[in-house]
Amino acid sequence: MVTKLAILGSTGSIGTQTLDIVRKFPGQLAIIGLTAGHNTPLFSKQVSEFEPRLIFTADGLAAQNCHSPEEIAAHPDVDIVIVAIPGYAALTSVMAAAKAGKIIALANKESLVCAGEIILAEAEKAGASLRPVDSEHSAIWQCLSGESTPPARLILTASGGPFRRYSQTELSAVGAEDALRHPSWRMGRKVTIDSATLLNKGLEVIEAHHLFRMPYDKIDVVIHPQSIIHSLVEFEDGSIKAQLSSPDMRLPIQYALSYPLRWSNDALPKLDLIKTERLDFEPPDHTRFPCLALALEAGKNGGTYPTVLCAAGERAVELFLAGRLSFTDIALVIENALAAHSPVEYPLIADIISANHWAKDAVSEIVEKERRYC
Amino acid sequence: MVTKLAILGSTGSIGTQTLDIVRKFPGQLAIIGLTAGHNTPLFSKQVSEFEPRLIFTADGLAAQNCHSPEEIAAHPDVDIVIVAIPGYAALTSVMAAAKAGKIIALANKESLVCAGEIILAEAEKAGASLRPVDSEHSAIWQCLSGESTPPARLILTASGGPFRRYSQTELSAVGAEDALRHPSWRMGRKVTIDSATLLNKGLEVIEAHHLFRMPYDKIDVVIHPQSIIHSLVEFEDGSIKAQLSSPDMRLPIQYALSYPLRWSNDALPKLDLIKTERLDFEPPDHTRFPCLALALEAGKNGGTYPTVLCAAGERAVELFLAGRLSFTDIALVIENALAAHSPVEYPLIADIISANHWAKDAVSEIVEKERRYC
Repeated sequence: MVTKLAILGSTGSIGTQTLDIVRKFPGQLAIIGLTAGHNTPLFSKQVSEFEPRLIFTADGLAAQNCHSPEEIAAHPDVDIVIVAIPGYAALTSVMAAAKAGKIIALANKESLVCAGEIILAEAEKAGASLRPVDSEHSAIWQCLSGESTPPARLILTASGGPFRRYSQTELSAVGAEDALRHPSWRMGRKVTIDSATLLNKGLEVIEAHHLFRMPYDKIDVVIHPQSIIHSLVEFEDGSIKAQLSSPDMRLPIQYALSYPLRWSNDALPKLDLIKTERLDFEPPDHTRFPCLALALEAGKNGGTYPTVLCAAGERAVELFLAGRLSFTDIALVIENALAAHSPVEYPLIADIISANHWAKDAVSEIVEKERRYC
Repeated sequence: MVTKLAILGSTGSIGTQTLDIVRKFPGQLAIIGLTAGHNTPLFSKQVSEFEPRLIFTADGLAAQNCHSPEEIAAHPDVDIVIVAIPGYAALTSVMAAAKAGKIIALANKESLVCAGEIILAEAEKAGASLRPVDSEHSAIWQCLSGESTPPARLILTASGGPFRRYSQTELSAVGAEDALRHPSWRMGRKVTIDSATLLNKGLEVIEAHHLFRMPYDKIDVVIHPQSIIHSLVEFEDGSIKAQLSSPDMRLPIQYALSYPLRWSNDALPKLDLIKTERLDFEPPDHTRFPCLALALEAGKNGGTYPTVLCAAGERAVELFLAGRLSFTDIALVIENALAAHSPVEYPLIADIISANHWAKDAVSEIVEKERRYC
């Protein structure tokens, strides 16, 4: 039986890599829906190749009977929705897929970070299931397989980013070009910058908290520069399971589609431990990389704080990439936005939407004010 | 419901550590059978403490209605048989437990190495199940949990023993005292010497071949001096799972008893990856440690060769511990015994018994002859 897929965000890094997997398994996977933002040339090529019935782009190219990514996500013919839209923008599509009881292969973390409780409640009600595509969460999911006792602790690994050894002074001089060069992973621009600040790891902790229903004090982060161990799970008896592979997003993508099976794919790199030689571990440095602690605090405080974290982070990275904010100011700006926020404790989607707008405006204002005093 | 245990070999390293676990979980585990060899003082203490109904020692202390470890292994009241008898001597007890359809927590590798096909066939017929207690096989078993696709490759880790960095000349001068000091594991004498020669890892490969029904060309060995990753499993998609913990045999023992659950046990050490700092991997050196390749060849050749490997190894280690054989001669003597053997291709238990005797005599003869020419 062929599994019918809809990829939301097919022209991005995760979207194109998902299509690589689909090309490899024509007997198992078929594309019936594709959506994209503004990369119309690539999208048109994808549409000619895969001939999906359901299409949408932000630039206006849409199939006759289909008006939005949300409708595609909820379409009765879709078996698995791959959410590869970056950032907060994915929220409404994830909600639509959850309400429609879909299998959701989730590559987007912001939706869960901002609205984890709401999405999980809807998913449970409608019988939807979430399959993580992020390498860390896929690793944890794989390690939990077959276990009948809840885990004692999740340990997320972080590469530490390209500036792991930089001093505070060196960090403040980092430019966008430097930050876009990630040592081990091929990813989108926003995620790459978030990896360099460790904000990404903080978002992942919040995502793990929701996905695996783990309290924050049972989720640790360890710096592992080789990005070979993608995460670990500790059990009650002290046994730890880890998932390892060469850093390649196609593996967690494929696993989210092949689950519970595993498919042989000669295009995926095999890990050679002897060539790897060594795996290192060190604690994260919260002084030089304050975004991680900010994220953990926002997660623990809950309510609309995680939304503000995401939105302030998105705006700050835009300003950094535009050369209007220094690398070390990203954390400062997020911290100020969180400090200025009046939270809603049990937010509805409407509260999340307004917190998102508020935070983006707040960051712009903070940056504006700073400039005035320069 | 309390699980009723019989420990065969209760005074040895695995036996006493199993009793440590039983002491921790009086509501889950009860001892109804104990057997030992010649350590009567310790055995008597264990009998007073646990009051088992079924007892036996090689020194003649036996309960009224019970005459042998084999009978205890097959006793209808026993739920799990822990086979902690070292070496070839465990074979008949494992066979008895298999024929009786027991759950067998197997800490003995020689029984499977010598008679894997026969034991597994009997186990399948009678509905017996094998739970590995060896840390490597327990790791593989844990990593396979929940997977519905057969593994692509097993990767057994080896500490490399205390002489990993020794030159050939240094190795030939190694004494029994040196070899009994293992860098990471607390184990019996025979296993400790076998760890130093890497014969132990060869036996483990053969055991893994049987336990997990994997062909030899899909089982690798990698030297990992920290003994933190206990083994790994690679799947068809290139994903690798590993099991990690501080080196402590009580963890795999407990898991074999708690399976499929995991029990919280504050006596078991927790692993701190950050304190561990690094994990190293290197290939085994077949020139300095020829026992590994000898074992793999014996395994591939099958028939009575693995029995000769075990028996020659046991005799050679006895002679080494008695100061009658040098450390490097252990491999030579095993090699000569294997070369001189006329194998039985599809052995019955009787053939295995006679191959065992033949090999021990053969080693004695080889060593005797060498002395004559000295």
